[in-house]
Amino acid sequence: MTDCRTYLEQNSQRFLAELIDFLRIPSVSALSQHRLDVRRAGQWVAERLAAADLENVCVLETEGHPAVYADWLHAPGRPTVLIYGHFDVQPADPLEQWQHPPFEPTVRDGRVYARGASDDKGNMLAPILASEAMLRTSGALPVNVKLLFEGQEEIGSPQLADLLSAERDRLACDLVLSADGGQWSEEQPAILLSLRGGCGLQIDVTGPKQDLHSGLHGGAVQNPIHALAGLIDSMRADSGEILVDGFYDDVVALSHEERARVAELPWSDPAYAASLDVDSCFGEPGYSTLERQWTRPTLELNGFWSGFQGEGTKTVIPSTAHAKITCRLVANQQPSAIVELIAAHVERHTPPGVRATVTPAAFHAWPYAMPSDHPGNRAAQAVLEEIYGRAPYFIRSGASIPVCALFLENLGAYTVGFAFGLNDEGFHAPNEFFRLESFARAQRAYCEILRRLASLS
Amino acid sequence: MTDCRTYLEQNSQRFLAELIDFLRIPSVSALSQHRLDVRRAGQWVAERLAAADLENVCVLETEGHPAVYADWLHAPGRPTVLIYGHFDVQPADPLEQWQHPPFEPTVRDGRVYARGASDDKGNMLAPILASEAMLRTSGALPVNVKLLFEGQEEIGSPQLADLLSAERDRLACDLVLSADGGQWSEEQPAILLSLRGGCGLQIDVTGPKQDLHSGLHGGAVQNPIHALAGLIDSMRADSGEILVDGFYDDVVALSHEERARVAELPWSDPAYAASLDVDSCFGEPGYSTLERQWTRPTLELNGFWSGFQGEGTKTVIPSTAHAKITCRLVANQQPSAIVELIAAHVERHTPPGVRATVTPAAFHAWPYAMPSDHPGNRAAQAVLEEIYGRAPYFIRSGASIPVCALFLENLGAYTVGFAFGLNDEGFHAPNEFFRLESFARAQRAYCEILRRLASLS
Repeated sequence: MTDCRTYLEQNSQRFLAELIDFLRIPSVSALSQHRLDVRRAGQWVAERLAAADLENVCVLETEGHPAVYADWLHAPGRPTVLIYGHFDVQPADPLEQWQHPPFEPTVRDGRVYARGASDDKGNMLAPILASEAMLRTSGALPVNVKLLFEGQEEIGSPQLADLLSAERDRLACDLVLSADGGQWSEEQPAILLSLRGGCGLQIDVTGPKQDLHSGLHGGAVQNPIHALAGLIDSMRADSGEILVDGFYDDVVALSHEERARVAELPWSDPAYAASLDVDSCFGEPGYSTLERQWTRPTLELNGFWSGFQGEGTKTVIPSTAHAKITCRLVANQQPSAIVELIAAHVERHTPPGVRATVTPAAFHAWPYAMPSDHPGNRAAQAVLEEIYGRAPYFIRSGASIPVCALFLENLGAYTVGFAFGLNDEGFHAPNEFFRLESFARAQRAYCEILRRLASLS
Repeated sequence: MTDCRTYLEQNSQRFLAELIDFLRIPSVSALSQHRLDVRRAGQWVAERLAAADLENVCVLETEGHPAVYADWLHAPGRPTVLIYGHFDVQPADPLEQWQHPPFEPTVRDGRVYARGASDDKGNMLAPILASEAMLRTSGALPVNVKLLFEGQEEIGSPQLADLLSAERDRLACDLVLSADGGQWSEEQPAILLSLRGGCGLQIDVTGPKQDLHSGLHGGAVQNPIHALAGLIDSMRADSGEILVDGFYDDVVALSHEERARVAELPWSDPAYAASLDVDSCFGEPGYSTLERQWTRPTLELNGFWSGFQGEGTKTVIPSTAHAKITCRLVANQQPSAIVELIAAHVERHTPPGVRATVTPAAFHAWPYAMPSDHPGNRAAQAVLEEIYGRAPYFIRSGASIPVCALFLENLGAYTVGFAFGLNDEGFHAPNEFFRLESFARAQRAYCEILRRLASLS
């Protein structure tokens, strides 16, 4: 009987073709015109789960984008592991910066380029393929496995809390493995101890009822762009510190030991800055760059638009100006409370002559942290050490995977990050790609960790 | 023999049809895709001048958009009057705010709605129709007339200086009448004593080489939107005063008499604010609203764009951010010098972690002023008093008509504003319109003023 690894190798061309097929679906959850594409991606996943001989495949409806579920529950007395991932993707713009169309996957130099290649379609497909390999080669899985893939991760999983609450019995498990995330480098594995939460909002500033001639009216009325720029500038000191009243009040300071652990990791500010083509790093004083990325909250502008954006000159005072903001949050900041603090800041600082409104975004995620010596982490540590030939770093992430906090709250289960993306792969950016080597490694790693979790204590 | 006024009345339906035909041409000088439309509008004007029996019709080429010339020079011993206007228009966006498509003229409630209806196609057509009426009814004009219509006024007439310099002989005249501008109200005429100048620039801020995931990178790098918002905010005090070093250095203060003359005019800040649907006026302290609009310089944001502008949330740190600025200038500010002051300000205030570049815009106009008792103004005063039944106000304008300063410099001739737009007609804004009553009045007024200028001393 073929072993798992051989099966994976023999089918690697078919698996790549399937990934490419999956990547063609523009399942952009943020844009309503792609609503049916998100659903189509979910249908693709459901069919692929069934083709892998996984059971009880079904689409779980929400009030927004659906999720897809399957399981294999024939290992009595063994632990139950829930594998998580997402089939929705970020918007692809700015389109003009893509070297290939984002939804026409291109394989080049051992990489597949497409929106969602790494985040998260390539990663989430791996455990399905690993399950197929184990079921075809040995007729069974070493543990009870449940798989849950959602279609709204990139907009902050607004309906997932309700879904988990409603489906507690179906999803009950001892541990979650998240196929959304990554490793330190091609050679160096890592285990993730914490994630930032997040929240978001849009500010809309309205001045005169229509765009005005800047010659006839200039000097008489407040300019909405100037007003919004002032509002934004008032939120941050030149040093990078956020000036919204109360913003840092609920932040739990890092322990000396935690800071030391972060400081041990290899890191170079100049190398990092050079990789992004900036002269220097920048941020809140008193913390290292890794500390700021992983363990400090942020207030970031994601978009700003107003007035004339075309070629040449249009001498208008625009009627409105708009900005999108998201924050990354750390324990114990509360997403809704932070939106309220920013709304209060906007109300206090809106200059005369314009009106400003704040609309909370759907993005809403609690910060998450897990003990480093949890048995799930120990299993992951052993598998990664075997596959990479070196011990994983214990790291944190500045990103948000809202579902980790939700799993803990609803299922009482911690989530072990077990995914193989790498930071240079352009998540949320043009020319996103996934390494084919990582795709293959992820499949092997999922076979190994499921075997090892059979003895989870 | 029919008199002039009767001729204009009998042909009014034809003239309106011609105006509508003219307004259909999307002669947007700021957008390169409309370059041929600007040329087509010039061709339309040339044909209309010939049809009015004006002579020596020709297209005057520049390195950019062309101008159109015609004349009638059979009044020996009489003054020569140059009539000026422009056939280019502002861009039409934001398109979604138009109730009718901007280049499908719509007549409703005694108004014609279209981009360029008031600024300046409706106004510039009037002296052509007046000339036709006089030539058809009396076979002659009371003075020597030259007509010059340009195709680049809305981008600041960048090539007009060279054209006027090269065509000094052809354009030599005693006085210019500008068919670009307006009156105080439907009942109240006005004579324009000064115009502001202007200059413009674009600021481009560049941060990381591509858009970044705001979770993975947030806290580590400067955000280009935040950086540009800070730059913009640094240019202006909360009070409205411009903080760019040297910005006000060359401004000639108003005399006590000039301020008194402005203060005499009827004006209500609350009524003006209400007409624009804002809570209050806003601007530099120490000056009335009319003073700020007419006699003080401004630094206005015309556009700002960066990052994600779509529906929902996209958690990126954008790679770049962009802003367009134009200033209105008063005597004796110099357009290029002001751009340099702003560029120096940007260089001094750019925060760490981003690069900023400043690109001057083509918009470049000198401030202009004319004596209130000039014989041209006295002639206009008499005609307006006759037509409206009341004495005109002596006013100023915050807008820029670069050609006035250029005529004075190149031809030694002052320009009398003689146009019939009104401030509610949405110049440079959605739903621009021109009153049909103003269109007819303008035609009659041009017949009258040409008669009166026959005795210009």
